[in-house]
Formats: sequence, structure tokens, C-alpha cells
Amino acid sequence: MIVAMQDTATEEHIQLVIERMVELGFRVHRTTGAAQTILAGVGTPEHFDVAEFKVLAGVHDAYRISSPYKLAGRNFRPEGTKITFPNGVVVGGKEVVIMAGPCSVESREQILDSAKKVAAAGAKFLRGGAYKPRSSPYSFQGMGVEGLKLLREVADETGLLVITEVMEISQIEVMLPYIDVFQIGARNMQNFNLLRELGHVRKPCLLKRGISATIEEVLLSAEYILSGGNYDLMLCERGIRTYETATRNTMDISAIPVLKKLTHLPVLGDPSHGVGIRDLVPPMALASVAAGADGLLMEMHPNPDKAMSDGAQSMYPEQLEKLVAQLRQLAPVVGRTVA
Amino acid sequence: MIVAMQDTATEEHIQLVIERMVELGFRVHRTTGAAQTILAGVGTPEHFDVAEFKVLAGVHDAYRISSPYKLAGRNFRPEGTKITFPNGVVVGGKEVVIMAGPCSVESREQILDSAKKVAAAGAKFLRGGAYKPRSSPYSFQGMGVEGLKLLREVADETGLLVITEVMEISQIEVMLPYIDVFQIGARNMQNFNLLRELGHVRKPCLLKRGISATIEEVLLSAEYILSGGNYDLMLCERGIRTYETATRNTMDISAIPVLKKLTHLPVLGDPSHGVGIRDLVPPMALASVAAGADGLLMEMHPNPDKAMSDGAQSMYPEQLEKLVAQLRQLAPVVGRTVA
Amino acid sequence: MIVAMQDTATEEHIQLVIERMVELGFRVHRTTGAAQTILAGVGTPEHFDVAEFKVLAGVHDAYRISSPYKLAGRNFRPEGTKITFPNGVVVGGKEVVIMAGPCSVESREQILDSAKKVAAAGAKFLRGGAYKPRSSPYSFQGMGVEGLKLLREVADETGLLVITEVMEISQIEVMLPYIDVFQIGARNMQNFNLLRELGHVRKPCLLKRGISATIEEVLLSAEYILSGGNYDLMLCERGIRTYETATRNTMDISAIPVLKKLTHLPVLGDPSHGVGIRDLVPPMALASVAAGADGLLMEMHPNPDKAMSDGAQSMYPEQLEKLVAQLRQLAPVVGRTVA
Amino acid sequence: MIVAMQDTATEEHIQLVIERMVELGFRVHRTTGAAQTILAGVGTPEHFDVAEFKVLAGVHDAYRISSPYKLAGRNFRPEGTKITFPNGVVVGGKEVVIMAGPCSVESREQILDSAKKVAAAGAKFLRGGAYKPRSSPYSFQGMGVEGLKLLREVADETGLLVITEVMEISQIEVMLPYIDVFQIGARNMQNFNLLRELGHVRKPCLLKRGISATIEEVLLSAEYILSGGNYDLMLCERGIRTYETATRNTMDISAIPVLKKLTHLPVLGDPSHGVGIRDLVPPMALASVAAGADGLLMEMHPNPDKAMSDGAQSMYPEQLEKLVAQLRQLAPVVGRTVA
Repeated sequence: MIVAMQDTATEEHIQLVIERMVELGFRVHRTTGAAQTILAGVGTPEHFDVAEFKVLAGVHDAYRISSPYKLAGRNFRPEGTKITFPNGVVVGGKEVVIMAGPCSVESREQILDSAKKVAAAGAKFLRGGAYKPRSSPYSFQGMGVEGLKLLREVADETGLLVITEVMEISQIEVMLPYIDVFQIGARNMQNFNLLRELGHVRKPCLLKRGISATIEEVLLSAEYILSGGNYDLMLCERGIRTYETATRNTMDISAIPVLKKLTHLPVLGDPSHGVGIRDLVPPMALASVAAGADGLLMEMHPNPDKAMSDGAQSMYPEQLEKLVAQLRQLAPVVGRTVA
Repeated sequence: MIVAMQDTATEEHIQLVIERMVELGFRVHRTTGAAQTILAGVGTPEHFDVAEFKVLAGVHDAYRISSPYKLAGRNFRPEGTKITFPNGVVVGGKEVVIMAGPCSVESREQILDSAKKVAAAGAKFLRGGAYKPRSSPYSFQGMGVEGLKLLREVADETGLLVITEVMEISQIEVMLPYIDVFQIGARNMQNFNLLRELGHVRKPCLLKRGISATIEEVLLSAEYILSGGNYDLMLCERGIRTYETATRNTMDISAIPVLKKLTHLPVLGDPSHGVGIRDLVPPMALASVAAGADGLLMEMHPNPDKAMSDGAQSMYPEQLEKLVAQLRQLAPVVGRTVA
Repeated sequence: MIVAMQDTATEEHIQLVIERMVELGFRVHRTTGAAQTILAGVGTPEHFDVAEFKVLAGVHDAYRISSPYKLAGRNFRPEGTKITFPNGVVVGGKEVVIMAGPCSVESREQILDSAKKVAAAGAKFLRGGAYKPRSSPYSFQGMGVEGLKLLREVADETGLLVITEVMEISQIEVMLPYIDVFQIGARNMQNFNLLRELGHVRKPCLLKRGISATIEEVLLSAEYILSGGNYDLMLCERGIRTYETATRNTMDISAIPVLKKLTHLPVLGDPSHGVGIRDLVPPMALASVAAGADGLLMEMHPNPDKAMSDGAQSMYPEQLEKLVAQLRQLAPVVGRTVA
Repeated sequence: MIVAMQDTATEEHIQLVIERMVELGFRVHRTTGAAQTILAGVGTPEHFDVAEFKVLAGVHDAYRISSPYKLAGRNFRPEGTKITFPNGVVVGGKEVVIMAGPCSVESREQILDSAKKVAAAGAKFLRGGAYKPRSSPYSFQGMGVEGLKLLREVADETGLLVITEVMEISQIEVMLPYIDVFQIGARNMQNFNLLRELGHVRKPCLLKRGISATIEEVLLSAEYILSGGNYDLMLCERGIRTYETATRNTMDISAIPVLKKLTHLPVLGDPSHGVGIRDLVPPMALASVAAGADGLLMEMHPNPDKAMSDGAQSMYPEQLEKLVAQLRQLAPVVGRTVA
């Protein structure tokens, strides 16, 4: 930590700051300038809150200089994390992995039809919500365990892996037999109790960026899972909330290369939630891979105009097919492949 | 719902939209202008997603015209909700109620000292976290049930009521014997499973606005609790995330009068989280009450420079005392009182 | 400036950073920690861009520690700036000053009626646009010089001072004979050529915060005017752009006490643009003064339902009257008065 | 326009709204539902402000249903605008056009070196600021007319076209002989007087999106230029301000396909300002073209570590060269080419 004093700070102010730094476990190096005194805290105490120093008398500003996350940092595994699934699919390798499917599981027929189309297009994962977080208590809340069973069944039939959202600690046990990846939704990115539990599970997780989460907060939430011992973790950019209303969210494509630099974890893009409008999904999917994404999570529905949720952002099957063809051409430009 | 067609929409486009509206349960009134056709959907189908219509071919835009929440709306209880506690304290009445205390319960001594000072200043509720949601897994996570016991003990000793945060469904049962108000933190505002459970509890709740929640989303989350049958609910503005970094968050003071107009539920302000800097708390507390707040939730610590969390935004005891004296003068200007 | 190196930085990285700092005119103090090296740059070179250091190889982060503005800083005039007008009105003193009037000057009758009502309510300044910045080229663009003449005429008749917006350098000369304060609108807060010209004028200015300007940017824009020699400058918070759509903008009330701490310049609040909805203006005006504002700039129209611009946010005359009565009661709570 | 009344609206409320609509020139169609009355205004009055209706008594909400811009809309020229320069370069055609160069013109040597490298890499336009909008009055403000002359000189020598920023009406005449495109910076996107003047010039313009401008506001500002008769206009996404601080701005890549749908004007991306960090420029440039951009505007400096402005976001020459090679491979995936 570094504390820069105001040019009007008194020696007494300076001594009080030094005292507090020492108390926390820092060794303090002092630089006295003509205008300002600078206090550099050397050492890495377990707990300290840089905000506390910002409001001490005589302080101009205080800066945390060490990264607040450790296990999530790129240095921890410079070569990058690869997650290998039992069927040989790898996330975080050279191949850009595609995950697609409807927003919600609605019926056996709908999810089977989806799975077939998703598999035909070249995706490796089937997505589909069994438990649905909905802003309104009056909206469709998902099929629950029945949906999980259907997902497993049709995924096995079509050779796909299953990714689906977990909303609550009590669902973890229920979900385990049916799924391949626990998806943590944007609204639960800081549900720390849930994160901590998922750290103790031996099943890959995909953590979505919260709707107004900073990149640092994403990595701190990742740290909750990693510090429990679960290293099979992917991150996912899915749009942030801004003032712009032309799209549902503003997809922060730059978060993809920023995260790739800061962390060893695979980074996916979710253009469906990123923009929320079907026809914008293909260009944003292409942009995500151009910017370095390790995979894509997208909504496709066999009949989106009749979908029970998120129909407006679900692609038609033929859109997905055409998009994957384009992705196959684009991936080599950035040194990647699409199956 | 209203659908405005593009001026280039064909009759076929129009018919497809009408068909879909009828399918959902709307009766459709059509207005054909020289430029644009307007379709007004009369009736209130249970489920429909206005976004779905926005992307149909030939549609310019679609508007939901009924409020998506019902029980939370002002019309449901035009006279306003008053929550009466066993000791006679009322939230939502003429009196502006003050809730104060440290961010976290740290020790018996600290919380007792806090309670005494809070009571002396004129507050009716003691706040203090036993379970703490922290961005980093390495930060202090609270004393848990030990903290709950201490809160109850010192509150009883000083004649205060207890408000403290619930983070997880499994904590509800544990907390019930010790607390008077369940506080739902900003990060859990859309933890819908937790909200639904709290709807079945017979104990007042305070729901904080999520860090990037719209006012409509706050009211939809409130609807989750109300629709479970728990009507003793307060809302709380605690700052939203914007581009400005001079303050921790940007406290949206206007949310207070906006909410007072839209809902019958009492609305409090939390200037401590709203701005995150101790010396800005008193002016923002005064502003909240001037704008119509029914109460204030604030952090005060007997020794904020040594607080285990949020020390930077905790007032000194003498700041709280002085502030309450000012609030007593200010409240009558807006037709209220402070005890 | 301080540069914190990464823990993986090599000695070569460190030497290159030191070299560049020295080149810019810094003396460099080096602190070598077990993990990270910290380089403190002492001295204040005229030009340097902290962003340049953030991207140098081996750098963790770089921090500017001196304030980028000088004349606008509180230290420059710790006692605060008072602007005294020829008729004895003072902005920045104990009295909270009220400026009110319609969005646009529309006719002699309308502006005279406005002036009378504004004066009767207790305001000291008449506001009203003669040149109007409008998002659409098809909207009413103001009466121009004819509007300026009317403003002066009715202000003289009613004993008020005139504040009105300047949009363009060429308007300065034209406006000088008719006005008392040049208002710089939010859209022109970073029209640096205009600011520089206004620095050479000997007439007070009011600088509005840009719709997404940080507080530091407001002060840097103020610096443009001050550095030209014009010290009679007021600042004005008028709402920032956020994701919330329940109000036109989100009025950042906390900007008022933050600015009062950082600068010696008077700070006003404009609740009309801050929220954009008539009935929310009084609570936000009260909140502004409770939070420390030196004055208020507000829209009132004798017949807002027929206003040619911004009718939705213009108060009815009786609303203004009632509000000023409340402000008279509230001001003493924060040690101020309203005439 | 459509006005949806509240379910509690009285007949008197409804009549007052109808009256006001008729007064403005609308014919009104009324739909009376069991719950709510809907008033559809048919016709297109010149001036009306939808906000005015939102605050009338008994109104639930009001919606503008016609687009507020006309000349900028896609319908006005469904085939898209192509801007052809004297040397045969076309913007808005099949070829993705590259514009590159330093932030500022600093010296003959620097700008000549830049021009050579930019031309060698395959760019068609040389960018470089002669007039610089800088947040601080103490920063380098550009070389002015001397810079313009150098730009023209080296561009002619290297076969490039010149694009540079205009900040002020008085600069237009001065710039005309030296430049090929007037660039309107983000801070001037709503400098309406400047826009209006540029509408009367017969020289192409590039309008950058303001740092917090909505897409609709961009198109309304475009309308100012188009309505003056200047149709040779390009738009440019250059990052918006959000809460995220990992990048200088958040580049809204989705604005590119959204604009391509709404308007016939060519749309470029500026990843340098979009993210502000050199190493992120190539991935964001690739993403821009993948999402449909007609061109790129980028900063490259022969020696960015010594640049007088924006060095941190200027690419090294070899980065630009490598990027253009990748763009040549990528463009065909989306049906485009790069020279």
C-alpha cells in the first residue's frame, strides 16, 4: 500500500498514518518531497482496507498496490487453465467451444429438438435453464428437477455436455447427477455463500460477470471458488448495465482480452444476454472470438417466437448454423479453431 | 401492451403481430394512421414478454403499459404501510426512524459501547452485521451466531430493536430468535429464492436496492416478498454504481421521492453506503430526510479507525449525535418529527 | 507521481521507468520490497501523462498524486469565493441564492409574467434561455438577441439579475450588454475554446457539470476559466447520466459537499434538470440545500403545460412559492439563510 | 405518439390529454379498456415533447412512436451512403478503410515518419490532431495551423488523405485548404452551432459518438449536419463512459451493428479511444470489423513512449502492420475486404 499525504499535512498527521500502517503489519518507507510526503508500506498483511487510509486526516490518497486476488491471477498458472471433460472436450485450449440452447427447458420435445439442432451446428454443450431467476415473481420459474432430467437425457442422446444454472445451495446436490457444468448467473456473482459451496464441489463451474461488476470483482468472486479447491472454473462476459437502451445490456467485449491478460481462467462470451436482440447476436459472437474468447454461450430456440422466456434474444436454428460456419473461418485469424 | 408498427410494415407483418397478441390473451384494437399502424392490446394476460414483440418483423417498438408489480404499487394501499414493532416503534408514520451501529459486530465490548451511543443519540434500532458479504474471501466474514446473540443482548440492555443482514436461506431459522428486522443486502436484492423464503416469515424485512437495480426492479423484488404474505417490508436506497469515483457509490436521493410515489412501502436512506466517506454522511442524511425518507440506516463505530470493516464510512459517535440534533430541526420542515 | 512495479518486474524494467521519470523532471526515490518495487517521483513537472506509465513493461500501476488543477483548489482560497453583484447580491455568502425562470424566453408577456412571479417568490436571479441547445435540429432554438433584450428589460423592471446560456464564442460580445451571468451548459462543459474566451471576460460565469463529467473534470474545466483571469465563477450540479430511467438524469447530491470540500468556488444545484419531473423538483431542491448548496437554479413557467421547451420539469408558480417558504425554514438548520 | 392513461384516470383527465394532443396537431384515436384508456395520436406535428405528456395528471406513460430523425434514418437511403474521395478511395463500400496516425502532430519529422508507416501498413487516411481538446488547460494544446500544413504536406508525399479534428467554428475556414475530412470529437458531438456550420460545408465529416451519448442522440446530431445539406458524413463509435475502470472507456461494439441497421451512414470504430490501452487495440479493431464496421480510426505513433499526448493508447508501427495483416484475413468472413 502507498499513502500520499497532502501538501498541508502536519508531522502529526504523518506519524498517525505511519503508526496505523505499522499496526497492520507494514514496514513503512518514507519519502519526503518538497510538496508531499509519500509513505510506502512494504509487506502484505492479511487484512487491510485501503479506504480507511483515504479518510485519515492529512491524507491525499491511498493506493492498494498488490492484487487482492491470488489464485485467480495469471501468475498463478501462466500457461492457462484447460478444463478437460470426460468425453475429451477441452475448454481453454486451441479450440473455441460453443455452448448453445434455449433459455429454459420447456418440454421434452422442445429440448430434444434444441439439442439436435445445437449438435448439428457443431456445439459441444447444451444450455437450458431448469431453475430460472426472473425479475418478476409472476414469470415462468422453470421446470426444476424435471428439466434437469430432460437435459441429461437429450444431451446423452445427442452427445452433448450439459451446462445449466444453479441458484441456491440446496440445488447443488440435486443437480450433481444431471449436469456437467454449474452455471452461476450474473445475479448470483456475489452470492458468496453459494460460491463458497461450489468451491467444494468437484465439477466445473462457469461464473458470469454481474450486471455491474468490475473486472476486479469478477476475479474476487472467482477467488471464492478457487480457494475452496475447485480449479475447473470458466468466466463469462454477458453484458453490463449502462445508460444505453438500444440494447438490453452493453456487451463489454474488451473485458475478454483484459481478463485473458489478468487471469489463467478460460473466458467465454455470451452475446445473447450481452445485447438481448436476436439479430445482433451473430455480429457480437464474431466480435467475441475476434477479441480472444475461448468459447461462446448462446441462446437458440427451435421456435423462438413461442419461447417461454428470452425469445427475443434466441437465435433461429438457421442463424446458429450460419454463424458457426463464419466462426470456423474467423477462428484461424486469431490462431484458434472451431470444430 | 401497445405495439407501434414501422411505416414500412406490410399487412402480413401486422396480421402476424395481431395473431400473436390474441394468442397471449389480448383483445386488439387497431389504429391505422397515414404513416403507422398502432395495435393496442386490451386485457392483462398473466405472462407476456414485451421484448418478444420488439423484434418481430415490421415492429417499430412495443410498450408494456400496465405495471409489472401489483402488491407493491401505491394503489394497493394508498394510505401507506406502517410497521409497528412490539415496543411501539412505528416505521412509516410521522416519525423519521433512525437505525445506527457499526458495520460488523466485533466483540461484546464494541457492540455494547455502540448500542449505548446509538441509543443516547436517539436511534431506535441497532444495526450490526453478524454475517458479512465481502468481495474478497480473505476479508473478515463476521462473527455469525455469536454476533447475533451479542446484538440481542446489548439491544435489550439499551432498549433498541435489532436489524441485521441475512445472506442465505439456512440463516433464517437461526436468526429468528435474535432479531427484529431481516436486512436483505444490495447483493441479494435479486436472490429470488431468499426473497421467496422471507415472504413466508412473519418478521419485518428491509430490502436494499441493488447496486445497479432500477426502481422497477426494486419493486419487483419487493413483490416476491409481498406475494408470500409478508407485508412488513421497508425499502432502502443505498447508492448506485456510476462512473463517478469521488464517492464509493452515487446516492440516488431522487429514488426516495420516486419510490414514495410509486409504492406504499416505507423508504429509508443509507447514506453510509451511499457515499462511503464519513464526513459526507451527515449532509447526505439531511438530504435524505429533506427529500422525504421515512428513516435512516447509518454506520457509527465507537472507534472507526480500528473498525474491522467499513471504518472509512462509519461516523464518530459525536458526529451521529450532532447529526440527530440537526435532523430534529429539519424534520418539521417536511412535516415529520425525529424523537 | 508513484509507480508500483509488478512483482515479476526485472531490474531492466525498473531502470527504464526510472529513466523516463527522470527525463520528465522527477527525482526518483526507490523502495525495494520483498515483493514489489515502488518508485516515488518527487517534483512537479509541467506535463506528464500518468497513463503512459501504466502501460510500460513491468509496471503494476501508476498514480498521479498531485492535484491536476491549482486555481480551482480549495487551498488557493481557503475562505471561499464570494461573488458580489452591483445590486449587492452575493453568491457564496451565508445566503442561499435562488435563480428561477422558464427554460426559454418565449414572448415579452411570458417572460415578464415569469419575472414577476420569480421576484415575488424571493428569487434574486431570472433565468431563461435565448440561445437553446436542443438535441434535435427540428426543435425550437430560442429567440436569440430578441430574447436577451426581453430578459434585461423585465429583469430591470422587477429588480432581478439575469443569468442565461452562452453556446458559442461569437455570442459573448452580443450578450455582454444584457446579462449578469454567463451560463455554460452541460453540453459545453468541455468546449475548451469557449471556456478560454470566458476566462478573458469580466463578468461572472456559472459552469454546469457535464452529463457524464467527473468532479475532477468539472474542476479542470473551471481551471480553464480561472486561468484566464476570471475568478467570478460558480459551479452547478445538474444531474448525471446513469442507467436509471425513472428520472431524466440522476442528480448527484453528494457532488455538492464533495465540491465544497475540494474547491473555493460557490456550488449550486439545478434540480429541474437533475430529475426532469416537476413534482420531484421541490424535494430535490430541499435536499440540495440540506447538503450544502450555495444556491439553486430552477425552472418555473407561468403556464408550464404550454411551455415551448422543458415544460415537464418547470414548476408552477405556486410550487416555487411554497418551496421557497420551506427553504427559509430549512436553511438555518445548516447555518444559512434564504431571503 | 401514444398516451396510456392510468387505471385511476378520470374522464376529465382523459379529456385534458386529448385536448392538448389536438392542439398540437394530432388526430386522436381512443381505445377504452376495462383497466386503461389508450390514446393514439395520428399525424406528425413538427414540435412536440413527449415528456410533457408523461407528467399530465392521470397519465401512466407516453411514447413517441415516430423516429425523431429523418435524413439520418436507413429508410432515407436504404442502399447506404458511399463517400467517394477525389483519389478514388470510397468509405461505405465493400472495402474496410483504415485511418491511422498519431494523436497529435508534433513535428515535421514525427508526422512524416508516421505517414510513411501508416501508408506502408495499408491505411488510406492519415489522422493527427492540430487542434487538441484537452481536459487540462496546462496540457499540450496542439500546433494549430502549422500542424495542418504539415499534415497536408506529408499526406501528399505519401498518397494519403487527411482527417483531423475541428473544435471551433472559426477553424473551419482555416482548415478547408489542408484537410479531407473534418473530424468532430466526442466532446463536441452536441456543439450544435458547430454541427450546423459543418452542414453548410462541402467536405466530408466524421462525427464521433459523445462519451455518454445514446445512439439516438448520435443520429440527432448527424441530422444537424445532414439537414444543412452535407450528406458526406461518417459516424464513429469510440467508447462510452461506464463504471468499469480497467479500460479508459467501454467500447460499445454493439453500437456498430445497431447503427448499421438504423442509418445509411458509414460507421467506423475507434478502438484507441475505445479502450485506451495499446495492447487492447488490435483485438478491439478485429472485433469492430467482425461486427460490421466500415472502417477503423486508430492511433499509431513512431515512438509512442515519447508521444506528447495519448502515448499509452498509440500502437507501435509493427503492431499496426501485424493488425492490418490480420484484418485482411478477417474481412472476407463478413463479406468485406481490406486493401
